[in-house]
Amino acid sequence: MSPNRALVFKEIPSGLPVPGKHLAVEEIPGDETTACPEGGLVLKSLYSSLDPYQRGRMRPPHVQSYYPALPVGETFTSRAIAQVVSSDNPQFRPGDTVIGMLSIQEVVILEAKSLPFVRLLDNPMSIEDIRAFLGPLGVPGLTAYGGLYEIGKPERGQTIFVSAASGAVGQMVGQIAKLEGLRVVGSVGSDEKLKFILDELGFDAGFNYKTESSLADALARVAPEGLDIFFDNVGGDHLDAALAHMKDHGRVVLCGTISDYNKAPEDRYPVRNTTYIFSKRLTVRGFLVSDKEIMEKYSAEHQRRVQGWLKDGTLRTKIWEVQGVENAPEAFLALFTGKNFGKVVLKY
Amino acid sequence: MSPNRALVFKEIPSGLPVPGKHLAVEEIPGDETTACPEGGLVLKSLYSSLDPYQRGRMRPPHVQSYYPALPVGETFTSRAIAQVVSSDNPQFRPGDTVIGMLSIQEVVILEAKSLPFVRLLDNPMSIEDIRAFLGPLGVPGLTAYGGLYEIGKPERGQTIFVSAASGAVGQMVGQIAKLEGLRVVGSVGSDEKLKFILDELGFDAGFNYKTESSLADALARVAPEGLDIFFDNVGGDHLDAALAHMKDHGRVVLCGTISDYNKAPEDRYPVRNTTYIFSKRLTVRGFLVSDKEIMEKYSAEHQRRVQGWLKDGTLRTKIWEVQGVENAPEAFLALFTGKNFGKVVLKY
Repeated sequence: MSPNRALVFKEIPSGLPVPGKHLAVEEIPGDETTACPEGGLVLKSLYSSLDPYQRGRMRPPHVQSYYPALPVGETFTSRAIAQVVSSDNPQFRPGDTVIGMLSIQEVVILEAKSLPFVRLLDNPMSIEDIRAFLGPLGVPGLTAYGGLYEIGKPERGQTIFVSAASGAVGQMVGQIAKLEGLRVVGSVGSDEKLKFILDELGFDAGFNYKTESSLADALARVAPEGLDIFFDNVGGDHLDAALAHMKDHGRVVLCGTISDYNKAPEDRYPVRNTTYIFSKRLTVRGFLVSDKEIMEKYSAEHQRRVQGWLKDGTLRTKIWEVQGVENAPEAFLALFTGKNFGKVVLKY
Repeated sequence: MSPNRALVFKEIPSGLPVPGKHLAVEEIPGDETTACPEGGLVLKSLYSSLDPYQRGRMRPPHVQSYYPALPVGETFTSRAIAQVVSSDNPQFRPGDTVIGMLSIQEVVILEAKSLPFVRLLDNPMSIEDIRAFLGPLGVPGLTAYGGLYEIGKPERGQTIFVSAASGAVGQMVGQIAKLEGLRVVGSVGSDEKLKFILDELGFDAGFNYKTESSLADALARVAPEGLDIFFDNVGGDHLDAALAHMKDHGRVVLCGTISDYNKAPEDRYPVRNTTYIFSKRLTVRGFLVSDKEIMEKYSAEHQRRVQGWLKDGTLRTKIWEVQGVENAPEAFLALFTGKNFGKVVLKY
């Protein structure tokens, strides 16, 4: 048996976390031969999702935020797909594939009380690449789907701007908006990503924000008609520029503010265009996938439609797979440096 | 006959307008003896409303905004109450009181084509002080009423923060929110105004922002429980501080951004807390009273309920009356310096 390794939170960072210092891969007890706990499971991890929100958990426990702080010394958790090695529960058999909120580690020993965190992977259309259940069919997919419909309220012929357009959420938003008949423009962080959203995802226009001297000019160029919807995964400078470029009664879907996650409050980008929220009568709304108006309202519809679109090839998925838990820290950091290209998945 | 005088737009200002330079009172043709135009009216102005939005009209015509730019050389217009001097229309008789969008001048000669801009003042409950139809029963009142209900969605026991709380809109928002059973806190620009909102309007708490070193600290003191609703007439620093103090799923009603109206875009206050719109899942929405979800939805209900509340003394009104059109420029400027105390009304 190989040793069991986990991604552990070591120290609270003040900026970009440093692998080895703030998070590290460490050996922990337990392996596939560990006796199954009473009523529990022994799982072998297949894939774990790595997501920007996990940076927000690396904070002092007294700081309030939408997701509980992770205590220093604990193993990170995330949505993961795993295989049952042994089971003391009649609902699960060895060999079953499960999905749920699990520790980021190679072998997971799940006590009976933790069983509600996993369920059998439900794959009625036999989607071949099960990593999709961490991407378009997982949390990023439902985030894209629910945020777009609930807050964006897309209508045929309108224009939507998607930031971080090749990312896990952005790639879905853009493609669904195209299916709804919108004009879709996006921003990305490299020329390679730009080519991808234009040539493979069918975006109507886009730009690499790293090579633009002015986001305002870039927006004016790719969407001279103005924006009906801005689906924002970035915040800061992107939000500021888009506010000035929205049409009256436009909707800004605040899905994330990744540009802020590694910044102290006083270093956040100074947004000077909030005045347009008033004068253009915009609706700017933040949401989390766990909010009941997203989760409860859209889960079933999202699974049904997106499974269909994946099955018939209507939707494309870009997954950035990193192999080996020893590479998890670098894979996580890539989310903030933009090194990743697509949805980040850790393969064990 | 005294000469007819009007408030004229002279020059586009770049900051705070200067009376005599950017706006001035000038003699214009026409007086009460002027022959009534065919199908039209001759009106003697009684009261004109002066409002912050009029600053936004003093811009170059090519700059887009929600209200048409006022061409240089033209007379300002506003909601006004006037008396019919002579009429060539069977719907109006000399002595009738009318209300509508009129030039800010002592005598108004109204051509037949402009009659849609005025109507007979409808005062079914015989409200004694007809200036109320420019305040609580006028545009500021409907603004307060519609914005509070449509966007704020007040619920008994919640906490609302109102900026510019003694102003035309703020005084209404605070009092209606109290009637709805909310805890109401407000910010004002003088100790006299603070005493007024606490002692006369029944606000639960408040502060004079000019004597606070930190808006964040002031908010934490007056509303330690956090804010469910922020009804904002100020923007900039007030919006920034309130975003950090909102509860999850709070609503920010952007009614105006008076702190910006005399600033160049690059001088606007840098808001660093937009990230909370995402993480607290806030809804931040701007509106204008003319938006159909306000005007059409709330006009009748607003008149019925607010007329009743004024008649039985439930609601109080603070009007800051300035006498004589020659004082109109200073009265208008007072809106931006905070010299006014309550709804600004020009009496002729």
